[in-house]
Amino acid sequence: MKEIKIFSPATVANVACGFDVLGFCLDSIGDEMIIRKISKKGIIITKIEGYDLPYEAELNVAGVSALALIEDANPDCGFEIEIYKNIKPGSGIGSSAASAAGSVFGINELLGRPYSNTDLTYFAMKGEAVASKSEHADNLAPAIFGGFTLVKSISPLEILEIPTPTELYATIIHPQIEIKTSEARAILPTEVALQDAITQWANVGSLIHALHTSDYGLLQRSLQDVIVEPYRSKLIPFFDDVKQAALNAGALGAAISGSGPSIFMLCHGPEDAKKVENAIQIVYAETNIEFDTYISKINTAGIKIL
Amino acid sequence: MKEIKIFSPATVANVACGFDVLGFCLDSIGDEMIIRKISKKGIIITKIEGYDLPYEAELNVAGVSALALIEDANPDCGFEIEIYKNIKPGSGIGSSAASAAGSVFGINELLGRPYSNTDLTYFAMKGEAVASKSEHADNLAPAIFGGFTLVKSISPLEILEIPTPTELYATIIHPQIEIKTSEARAILPTEVALQDAITQWANVGSLIHALHTSDYGLLQRSLQDVIVEPYRSKLIPFFDDVKQAALNAGALGAAISGSGPSIFMLCHGPEDAKKVENAIQIVYAETNIEFDTYISKINTAGIKIL
Repeated sequence: MKEIKIFSPATVANVACGFDVLGFCLDSIGDEMIIRKISKKGIIITKIEGYDLPYEAELNVAGVSALALIEDANPDCGFEIEIYKNIKPGSGIGSSAASAAGSVFGINELLGRPYSNTDLTYFAMKGEAVASKSEHADNLAPAIFGGFTLVKSISPLEILEIPTPTELYATIIHPQIEIKTSEARAILPTEVALQDAITQWANVGSLIHALHTSDYGLLQRSLQDVIVEPYRSKLIPFFDDVKQAALNAGALGAAISGSGPSIFMLCHGPEDAKKVENAIQIVYAETNIEFDTYISKINTAGIKIL
Repeated sequence: MKEIKIFSPATVANVACGFDVLGFCLDSIGDEMIIRKISKKGIIITKIEGYDLPYEAELNVAGVSALALIEDANPDCGFEIEIYKNIKPGSGIGSSAASAAGSVFGINELLGRPYSNTDLTYFAMKGEAVASKSEHADNLAPAIFGGFTLVKSISPLEILEIPTPTELYATIIHPQIEIKTSEARAILPTEVALQDAITQWANVGSLIHALHTSDYGLLQRSLQDVIVEPYRSKLIPFFDDVKQAALNAGALGAAISGSGPSIFMLCHGPEDAKKVENAIQIVYAETNIEFDTYISKINTAGIKIL
């Protein structure tokens, strides 16, 4: 195989209670990438469509993760990468993770799969760090593994694949405002109340149990964030209105996707996901802020070969 | 049925990372209780053997929980309770919970089981509060439900039953020192570092996943407490030595049982549990502190009718 075309999906990190550790993978939103073996060693980015991103491999998240992989693999060839970007950078649904994960996934396929998904996540973290200034895997892991993932630890890197209930859908709203990840980080306290932390880990535990048992009612009761949302929701206009409208329309939960500004809702079945989408569109249609909405089944496969 | 004899087991609360929410049930250590229908309404405690505890129902944890139940049920009879106490009060393996849970379990059986396990936990919390000055359920839930439990929330009370891997054993050491629950509470900070809280909820999530998947290796990597143990372990002489000896001998994890002074180890299989017991006996045999050790399979049934 000389060339591969892939779909690299958008992802939702944090998942309400699971700040910095949980994530899940979307199906209907993502980038496309073509990766091609070339004789000249190294990584060349030959095309970027959709958004204005750097072509220098050392400055591009897809390039940096690819460089990390080939530094380890030292293959007798190089790779050129074409990026067809659909996920807007800074939207909070894993735009940089899709790029960072996609390039290493594609190169691994072209090399005959020498690396595990955890290895790929490790290389992709090097690219993700270019965008977010810190190595984290909560968007990368669901993009690469698919479904729900729990990043148990970063060092050593350990990723757990959590089962996905079959009728679970996500509705996403992306308000077209900019929130810098650095700002979203800076707004968080360095210390939290022990009582809140206890509530949060009870919810993390019950969310994992709910995913294992396909208990949608328990999912609903577990999708609560008492630690991060009180701070970060202030950065997203009409967050409380969207959340309330979504819950009223039958969402199992609504919370900030990653560091925002996107908000995700989890829903039981496509009809509820559609009702929720309608309800949140009504909220945002009354504002001056442009927005997009998406509905997606949870993508249990992750990155796909097209 | 006029009379019932039950075995009410000891339990381990917190389970390393799951402070205030997780617990599991022991099999080989517990109290026995006889509960008998009597014509006179109310609760009478007629016998207490093993330890010196109050006979007045309003001052006794088993009495208070029983009173809470009959206040709700308003049965046309009363109950007398005999308590054969084997679990030393203040040992950190759920002595008061065994009493509080046992009385309501027995009365519920004699009344034809009008109440659910969650109802019984609710009544038992009233008794538990007499001993610990606060209503909590992290020892009660495993005593009543058996196996591993997660107290998702206290109000409303919601208890989740988490699967128990079949080859899981506990080894317990009870150093004969006194730690007051109030002191163990007071030593805790009211605020914790967000980074530590993230580590803790990653461990809670992965522990729940490990219990669902019977992944003993992951259990081992999840049984870490970065929040409470650094404070409370100081109250237990030779805690670090016991923990290290247990881990060296093959324990999956070692942590404080409840608020101590008991220390529990989880082990894969009875042989490992025995090796761990030997290793920790050697540590404590070199001290001046008296101690008991126990080995128990995880009790998935909870309270048993004898």
